[in-house]
Amino acid sequence: MAKVGILMGSKSDLDVVKPAVNVLKKFGVETEVRVISAHRTPNEAHEFAKNAKANGMEVIICAAGKAAHLGGVIAAYTTLPVIGLPVKTDMMGGLDSLLSIVQMPSGIPVATVGVNGGENAGLLAVQMLAIKYEELAVKLNEHKTAMRDKINADDQDLQALL
Amino acid sequence: MAKVGILMGSKSDLDVVKPAVNVLKKFGVETEVRVISAHRTPNEAHEFAKNAKANGMEVIICAAGKAAHLGGVIAAYTTLPVIGLPVKTDMMGGLDSLLSIVQMPSGIPVATVGVNGGENAGLLAVQMLAIKYEELAVKLNEHKTAMRDKINADDQDLQALL
Amino acid sequence: MAKVGILMGSKSDLDVVKPAVNVLKKFGVETEVRVISAHRTPNEAHEFAKNAKANGMEVIICAAGKAAHLGGVIAAYTTLPVIGLPVKTDMMGGLDSLLSIVQMPSGIPVATVGVNGGENAGLLAVQMLAIKYEELAVKLNEHKTAMRDKINADDQDLQALL
Amino acid sequence: MAKVGILMGSKSDLDVVKPAVNVLKKFGVETEVRVISAHRTPNEAHEFAKNAKANGMEVIICAAGKAAHLGGVIAAYTTLPVIGLPVKTDMMGGLDSLLSIVQMPSGIPVATVGVNGGENAGLLAVQMLAIKYEELAVKLNEHKTAMRDKINADDQDLQALL
Amino acid sequence: MAKVGILMGSKSDLDVVKPAVNVLKKFGVETEVRVISAHRTPNEAHEFAKNAKANGMEVIICAAGKAAHLGGVIAAYTTLPVIGLPVKTDMMGGLDSLLSIVQMPSGIPVATVGVNGGENAGLLAVQMLAIKYEELAVKLNEHKTAMRDKINADDQDLQALL
Amino acid sequence: MAKVGILMGSKSDLDVVKPAVNVLKKFGVETEVRVISAHRTPNEAHEFAKNAKANGMEVIICAAGKAAHLGGVIAAYTTLPVIGLPVKTDMMGGLDSLLSIVQMPSGIPVATVGVNGGENAGLLAVQMLAIKYEELAVKLNEHKTAMRDKINADDQDLQALL
Amino acid sequence: MAKVGILMGSKSDLDVVKPAVNVLKKFGVETEVRVISAHRTPNEAHEFAKNAKANGMEVIICAAGKAAHLGGVIAAYTTLPVIGLPVKTDMMGGLDSLLSIVQMPSGIPVATVGVNGGENAGLLAVQMLAIKYEELAVKLNEHKTAMRDKINADDQDLQALL
Amino acid sequence: MAKVGILMGSKSDLDVVKPAVNVLKKFGVETEVRVISAHRTPNEAHEFAKNAKANGMEVIICAAGKAAHLGGVIAAYTTLPVIGLPVKTDMMGGLDSLLSIVQMPSGIPVATVGVNGGENAGLLAVQMLAIKYEELAVKLNEHKTAMRDKINADDQDLQALL
Repeated sequence: MAKVGILMGSKSDLDVVKPAVNVLKKFGVETEVRVISAHRTPNEAHEFAKNAKANGMEVIICAAGKAAHLGGVIAAYTTLPVIGLPVKTDMMGGLDSLLSIVQMPSGIPVATVGVNGGENAGLLAVQMLAIKYEELAVKLNEHKTAMRDKINADDQDLQALL
Repeated sequence: MAKVGILMGSKSDLDVVKPAVNVLKKFGVETEVRVISAHRTPNEAHEFAKNAKANGMEVIICAAGKAAHLGGVIAAYTTLPVIGLPVKTDMMGGLDSLLSIVQMPSGIPVATVGVNGGENAGLLAVQMLAIKYEELAVKLNEHKTAMRDKINADDQDLQALL
Repeated sequence: MAKVGILMGSKSDLDVVKPAVNVLKKFGVETEVRVISAHRTPNEAHEFAKNAKANGMEVIICAAGKAAHLGGVIAAYTTLPVIGLPVKTDMMGGLDSLLSIVQMPSGIPVATVGVNGGENAGLLAVQMLAIKYEELAVKLNEHKTAMRDKINADDQDLQALL
Repeated sequence: MAKVGILMGSKSDLDVVKPAVNVLKKFGVETEVRVISAHRTPNEAHEFAKNAKANGMEVIICAAGKAAHLGGVIAAYTTLPVIGLPVKTDMMGGLDSLLSIVQMPSGIPVATVGVNGGENAGLLAVQMLAIKYEELAVKLNEHKTAMRDKINADDQDLQALL
Repeated sequence: MAKVGILMGSKSDLDVVKPAVNVLKKFGVETEVRVISAHRTPNEAHEFAKNAKANGMEVIICAAGKAAHLGGVIAAYTTLPVIGLPVKTDMMGGLDSLLSIVQMPSGIPVATVGVNGGENAGLLAVQMLAIKYEELAVKLNEHKTAMRDKINADDQDLQALL
Repeated sequence: MAKVGILMGSKSDLDVVKPAVNVLKKFGVETEVRVISAHRTPNEAHEFAKNAKANGMEVIICAAGKAAHLGGVIAAYTTLPVIGLPVKTDMMGGLDSLLSIVQMPSGIPVATVGVNGGENAGLLAVQMLAIKYEELAVKLNEHKTAMRDKINADDQDLQALL
Repeated sequence: MAKVGILMGSKSDLDVVKPAVNVLKKFGVETEVRVISAHRTPNEAHEFAKNAKANGMEVIICAAGKAAHLGGVIAAYTTLPVIGLPVKTDMMGGLDSLLSIVQMPSGIPVATVGVNGGENAGLLAVQMLAIKYEELAVKLNEHKTAMRDKINADDQDLQALL
Repeated sequence: MAKVGILMGSKSDLDVVKPAVNVLKKFGVETEVRVISAHRTPNEAHEFAKNAKANGMEVIICAAGKAAHLGGVIAAYTTLPVIGLPVKTDMMGGLDSLLSIVQMPSGIPVATVGVNGGENAGLLAVQMLAIKYEELAVKLNEHKTAMRDKINADDQDLQALL
């Protein structure tokens, strides 16, 4: 069964991370959720990344804010795809987190989603896994249909409302 | 054999896209490189995205600049992972391209790399494919080692130089 | 009678869209208000845009936030003038929405108003329609006079107050 | 015959304005091109705007840079649709021009296109005029088709090249 | 006796303007406070500016937000010094107001103070008037001393507190 | 005769300062031009500011770039009006210089002009002096007329050109 | 015993400064905390800086917001290391404070920490002092271990929670 | 004798780093200059930081650009003061580098200097070392005097020139 590691730099990032966990659960993907800091527990970060593949992880999501180095630090020690999830801050709405994550130098990509985009981080992980696991591709199609139906229902509701 | 679609919104984006093509070739991944515009050839974009999986694509890279909608438009029609590659512009160094690509609404992620990060777009595609193709994971490890050796050689050169 | 299509990418944008609807109603312009998402209901967006003119629409207003592609996607399928209404977000007060809408590539303009500028989106639609419908031009003059009178009354009130 | 006024705040903006003039000529729309400054020739701006409609203008394009007030000043004196064309500057790639034009207060919209988006300013004017002049709508469709063909030809060229 | 005109683009700017009025009153400078909009009452703006000197004004303060054209419009019609007071907005904390006011083209300066800097707008007006009115220069020195004493008292209080 | 002090933080700012000197010379205003650094010659800055009025200065222009403290440091030691002239830098086109100068705390205003706005700094000084020196007010009117004539001539030239 | 001067430009900055004071107390470093304004009490700033070393100070922390000149002004009069602590403002989350502090011209560095980074300002001061005072280096190691343990405990708590 | 480690993330940063090396040499401080990448040679970074103090380093300067993690990664493994030197990039003049370095989370400060501020990075290191090494404090005073003399000479030259 597919497994995704989900790291946050601080326990206070849990609210941003939760939608990612929920999406993965909904798609039946196993998760390992951890508080690991690039700066305060660098050895733990190193250990996690180095052993991630051996421990069954196939994708790693890293949520962090401000000078958000967690994604880059994890990507330094693994070749698994790393998804960077920038956490909103006071500095221009999280532009510091976003730039710290997305502007990686050549050779070490971090797949970045929008600020506080927890749900999209989870979905992107599922899309990556669906390359290998066809059953996830099927579920993604169902999810896409459900989103379409939801918007169409909203559209119907609106007509009644106006 | 793994295949990646690489789209650019304008032929003038080719220089930004080329490093992605080169990386994929180096890793032995097949590519289909296309000029398709979200705004000027929307039907072609729709067709490409809808049939991408059936045509053997497993990842799609979309390069675009300014109000860069190509990644989002492709992602709307497929559940394959879409990598967004923001092209540098005059507006704050490509911040318009970056925000237009990365800030996707919930439900439709685009895996964004840095501005003009063609090489990283290619590498990220390889990392995603390596979830399924173990031989690519092996090559990624070799590539990581080569990068390390290159930096260490630079470090040696520097010592001689100083 | 003149008709304007008003699309929003998400039902949550309704508060931003309402002032546009109200202005158009006040000027006696018919509206069709829809929830259509560039990313979650792309086929509906395509259908709407392709048939907009045949369905009597003469201008289309598109409200969206973050990576706001709706205006561009609609403009890709029609030659009717498209007004882009950026919705405020946490990212620098809606700069992501604004840049995603206004920085369109050559060939596909989107007439952009200010962030959360619903009233101006409506008025701009009326100004466009007034090119053809002289009675709207008359009403616009009356509206301009009323705005002037309102400011002058505010000025009078202020004198009493100080 | 349709007529569009095109104003620039300084003769140095001519390069940015020319693509707008060219597009309008190509569509057979008459133009009146003027150097009028909101700050240095405010009376001329006032006169132009007040008499624009009587002089046959149906749309007005205003190009200006930095603290770009021209569009707003013209819009203050007319109810014709005003298109704002921000000129690139050294300040964050023209963000000063863009914000000075697009962030208009309620009641006085300026239809803003991208920074240095002269061609789009011209096309937007044509789209507005096409509400009234059906022959322009026909030409806009032909133009859209030509753009599509151009991109598809670029796509073909690319295949030969790779 | 010295007189300063204080204009605001909208009655809602009164809270930002008040500190300017209060400072001028405290220094014994006469004020004329007006709601005049560059866009909604352009004729009133023109009239005010053209006659300002004849009406005894020696400095004019203009408060406005978003695409803040009031200062530039007033400066276009007078050679009196114009002080621009940017009002805070949601767009990056008033960066739109600031850039719209400060980035004036050559020939028409607007003396800009910080966002929501009403008190400083008033003090700057007093400093300008003090070039001519020596009694204001004396009062400015007293004010400077009082500010120094206030900070020193705060410093003393802090020592007691720690 | 009126006199204006013009300070630059570094000799390399001379090109930005020159237009201010030229304007003042043209208006017959005496200037004292100095290289004084807030950080490298703080005592000289202190001396200059403290004695500026006694030495006949009535306005002081301060040009500086990056963390541009010169205007604030001078304003701390005098009650003469201080004009801040931000010098363009690599950081977002001089946004660092601009914010460092314009965002002064309450009590110590610096009258800020646009980035590299040397000519406007000079003109603003003349406008301030014209409160006291009527002959300068006369010259400012002539200058305004000349600007108007120049723009109108440009407009005429353009008509010939098109 | 080591001593650190901590200056704030306004008493209202105390909340941002307190974490710095607390860290220094925790490490047994003496502090002198002062309200001194670069603009309102420049003589006091000068005196403080000039005598800081003679008064036993070895590092100086300067907290200020908006056009934050305090760090630069103090650094102008001393060769002790100066730590700049930018205070959050409404302007893009404190970008004005940050740029005003960090972008110092060559020759006069200010060691800048993040916006509202009071705790880090204190820790940085301790790290500097630990170059000389080995007992502080020992305590810094203990502090690093405690941080690690805290994150690991948070990680444990999270596992229980999920 | 005092020793400073100087790391750059890529050999291409050497031009930015050189002024730091030169300053330190001028002050007689030993340097160890290395190319070490947080992402491409993370083990080398770890080793360098862990052993830095044992190897005689007392301060570490880290230069990096874009998503600049080097300073943070080094600071994670040592309690020596780390100076962050942001390298200019295309993204808003290095704002990405600056924010990635300065906005460190609580507990792990990085003493940040301005973008491309190599000379200041070197001087800041000397100031830190001067806490312990009195001879460096003496040299810093001489350096400050020389800077003052240089500015005063520039001022003299300017007088001759005007």
